[in-house]
Amino acid sequence: MSTEARRPAGLPAEAAAAGPHRHVHPHHRREAIVRRLKRAEGHLAAVRRMVEDGRDCPDILLQIAAVRAALDATARVVLADHVESCLHNASHNGDAEAAWEDLRRALESFIR
Amino acid sequence: MSTEARRPAGLPAEAAAAGPHRHVHPHHRREAIVRRLKRAEGHLAAVRRMVEDGRDCPDILLQIAAVRAALDATARVVLADHVESCLHNASHNGDAEAAWEDLRRALESFIR
Repeated sequence: MSTEARRPAGLPAEAAAAGPHRHVHPHHRREAIVRRLKRAEGHLAAVRRMVEDGRDCPDILLQIAAVRAALDATARVVLADHVESCLHNASHNGDAEAAWEDLRRALESFIR
Repeated sequence: MSTEARRPAGLPAEAAAAGPHRHVHPHHRREAIVRRLKRAEGHLAAVRRMVEDGRDCPDILLQIAAVRAALDATARVVLADHVESCLHNASHNGDAEAAWEDLRRALESFIR
């Protein structure tokens, strides 16, 4: 049985290789998060061009508010990913204390 | 006296050429706003690379929160620019009604 074959489905190599004491974090929604962040980058570049083109401030503020809302939505996806990974890891490793500490840290930065 | 020489210092050509009935909006802080938006774009690209590199979610959430705070700060600069332009234009053109309507729209999108 090869090392590759022992890796659980969907778990990245770095996580599978990390061992029982490291925080294993598969990021199931990584692609979706990257896609959302790329879209937000493009949106932000478009807002910058609006400013360079001298567009009206109310339009610019509306678009900045839209990017902010997109970032909030992305943060919720990251948080959901984190919660699922934490709970998943905790239930498999019996390391609930560390998992809840990670979750507490994540929530703290999100609601700041 | 050339057309260029008649333009008030710091006022873009399109604003100076707009005439009394158009909403004149010099965007005194345009460069600063563009600089802030560029920085936020770079920050967001760095956050995306963090996700691609499999960095921990609490770190990612913290950076998303930082970009969001930078956007809020940028929106406040845009709003300040808008208020000053509106009040400036209103006092010069006697068009206070339109200026306040612009300001109301800007605030509405900002606090949504």
